[in-house]
Amino acid sequence: MLEGVTRVTPLLESELLNRRLGFRLVVKAECLQRTGSFKIRGAYVKIASLSAKERAAGVVAFSSGNHAQGVAAAAAELGVSSTIVMPDDAPAVKLRNTAEYGARVITYDRLTGDRAKIARDVAEETGATLVPPYDDYVLMSGQGTIGLEVADQLAQINTSADALVCPVGGGGLIAGIATAMAERAPQTRIYTAEPENFDDTKRSLITGERVGNEPGYNSICDSIVTQIPGEKTFPINKQLVAEGFSVSETDVISAMQTLADHMKIVAEPGGAAAVAAVLRHKEKWKGKTVVAVVSGGNVDLDTWRQYLTNTGDGS
Amino acid sequence: MLEGVTRVTPLLESELLNRRLGFRLVVKAECLQRTGSFKIRGAYVKIASLSAKERAAGVVAFSSGNHAQGVAAAAAELGVSSTIVMPDDAPAVKLRNTAEYGARVITYDRLTGDRAKIARDVAEETGATLVPPYDDYVLMSGQGTIGLEVADQLAQINTSADALVCPVGGGGLIAGIATAMAERAPQTRIYTAEPENFDDTKRSLITGERVGNEPGYNSICDSIVTQIPGEKTFPINKQLVAEGFSVSETDVISAMQTLADHMKIVAEPGGAAAVAAVLRHKEKWKGKTVVAVVSGGNVDLDTWRQYLTNTGDGS
Repeated sequence: MLEGVTRVTPLLESELLNRRLGFRLVVKAECLQRTGSFKIRGAYVKIASLSAKERAAGVVAFSSGNHAQGVAAAAAELGVSSTIVMPDDAPAVKLRNTAEYGARVITYDRLTGDRAKIARDVAEETGATLVPPYDDYVLMSGQGTIGLEVADQLAQINTSADALVCPVGGGGLIAGIATAMAERAPQTRIYTAEPENFDDTKRSLITGERVGNEPGYNSICDSIVTQIPGEKTFPINKQLVAEGFSVSETDVISAMQTLADHMKIVAEPGGAAAVAAVLRHKEKWKGKTVVAVVSGGNVDLDTWRQYLTNTGDGS
Repeated sequence: MLEGVTRVTPLLESELLNRRLGFRLVVKAECLQRTGSFKIRGAYVKIASLSAKERAAGVVAFSSGNHAQGVAAAAAELGVSSTIVMPDDAPAVKLRNTAEYGARVITYDRLTGDRAKIARDVAEETGATLVPPYDDYVLMSGQGTIGLEVADQLAQINTSADALVCPVGGGGLIAGIATAMAERAPQTRIYTAEPENFDDTKRSLITGERVGNEPGYNSICDSIVTQIPGEKTFPINKQLVAEGFSVSETDVISAMQTLADHMKIVAEPGGAAAVAAVLRHKEKWKGKTVVAVVSGGNVDLDTWRQYLTNTGDGS
C-alpha cells in the first residue's frame, strides 16, 4: 500500500565500526524517510483505510513534531484535508513545515490548553477523524512496514538479525515492527529503548502492567517522550518484546555522534535512542547482528551542532 | 560486477525544499557508500580487472583521503594486498581507517617527499600495480555505475532528469557518469562543479584545452582539489559536459547545511559542491528535475560542527 508513497529507507553499516565493536550494527535509517521520520507510514495507512465519506470530512491530529508532519503529508498525498493541533511554542520550523505540507495548523498554549480537547472539538465540528499518534491497530500496521522492509533487506544481503532495537514512545512503532518480525523473522529478539525517567515501557515490561512515569522530568528525546504505554500497544509489546533498555542523555549524544561520523546521517535525539542502547550494552551483542532503528532526524541544526561539541571517539 | 560489494545508495529529496526552490532537487547520496565516498566503486572494478598474477603482487595508490580508503577496502574485498602512500600530516582518523581496512600505509613529508615517486618505487620493488585516482578508463567505468543506478532509480519513480551536476576533481567520476548517462539517459544535460580557484575543468571546457590552476590557493573542498584535468578524463568530459560551474566556500557551507537540514545527511565540503552549484544557479532549473551527486561524507566532525555555526535558512 505504501509503494510509491514512502521510501524504502536504506540499511546502513560501517565495517570499521563493526570491527571495533566486535558485532555487526545495522541501522534502519528512517531519518531518511519523507518528512524526516517514520510517522508518514502509519498516518498514510490509517487515512487510506478511512471510507470515502470519512476522508471527505478530513482528519485531525495533535502533535508537536513528527506525527504532525507525517499526518499532514499523508493527508495531502491522499487529497484529504488535515487539521493539526500544535503548541504555540513549538519550533517555528515545525509549525511552518506542517503548514507547508498542507495542514491547517491550530496552536494552543501548552500550559493552559488541552490539545486532546481541541482536537475532539475539531472532530465534532467538522466530522474529521482523529489520527492518533500510536494507539491504533491500523496505524501500527503502517509503522510495521519497517519490519517487513528490514526482513527483506537483510535477506537480500543473505543475513538475518539476532536482535532489533527500536526507540519507543507510546509503543506503536515497535508494536508494528515486532508483529511484522514475529511473522517474518521470529528468531530476532526485540528490544525497546527509552530515555531515563521516561522508561515507562521498560518498567511496564518488568511488572507486566502499564505503569507511568514520574512527573517533573525533561528529556532531550522529545520525539519519544510519553507518560504511559498505550492501551493497545502494550499488550502486543508485552508479548513480543524481550527486554527494555533505558539510556542517558550522554548515551544519546554519543550515539548521534557515532551516526554522523560512521553512517553520515543526522539523527534526532529520540531517533538515536536505540543506537544509544546498543552501544551502552556492547557486551550483549558479541558476534551477533543487531538492527537499530533510527526513527527520525528532525533536529534543529543549531541544537544538533551543540550536541556535536562533546566530540568523543565516536564509538 | 559491484553487486554485493557496493551499496545502491539512495536518491533523496525533500518535497518542502523542492516547493521552495521551484524545481526538483534529487540527491544521489554517495556519502552513504561503503568507506564514505564513491571511490570504492572504481577501485574495486579496477583491481578486479587485474590478472591473477597482477593481483598476487598487490596494488599501490597515493591519496590523502577518499581514494586511500576506497582502494584499501576494495583490495581487502578481493583478497589483494595494498600499499597506500599518504602524507604524514593527513588526519589521524584517515590514516587509521586506511590501515584498518587492511592496507600497509607509507607516510611521507608533504613538503619534501614525492608521493608519485614513492608509489612508483613500491611498484618497482614489489611488482604492485598502481591504482590511479582518476585517469584510467577501467576505473572510470566503475565510477560510472553511479550513472547506471541514477537512471534505474529515476525510472523506478517514473521520472527522468533534465540535468545532473557532479563534483569534479580530476574528472574521473563525472567522465564515468556522463558516459553512462549518454547511453541510458541522453536527454540529461551534464554539469561539473568545482571550488573557486580550482575550476580547471570549467576553464578547460571553455577554452577546449586542458588548463591548470594558478598555484598558491587553498580550498576547504580537499577531496576535489586537483591541478589540471586528466589526460584521459578531459576528452570525454569535453564531449559530454554541457557547462562547468565554480562555487565559493560560502556556497559549499550553505549546501552542507541544506543537506543536513533537509536530507539528514553529512556531506564533506567537496562532496557538497554540486548541491552548492545547483543552489547558486536556482534560476536555471525552474520547473526542472536536477540530480546532484553528493560524492562523499568524510569530514571530521569537529570541523563540520564549525561549518554549521553559520546557520543560514538552509535553502
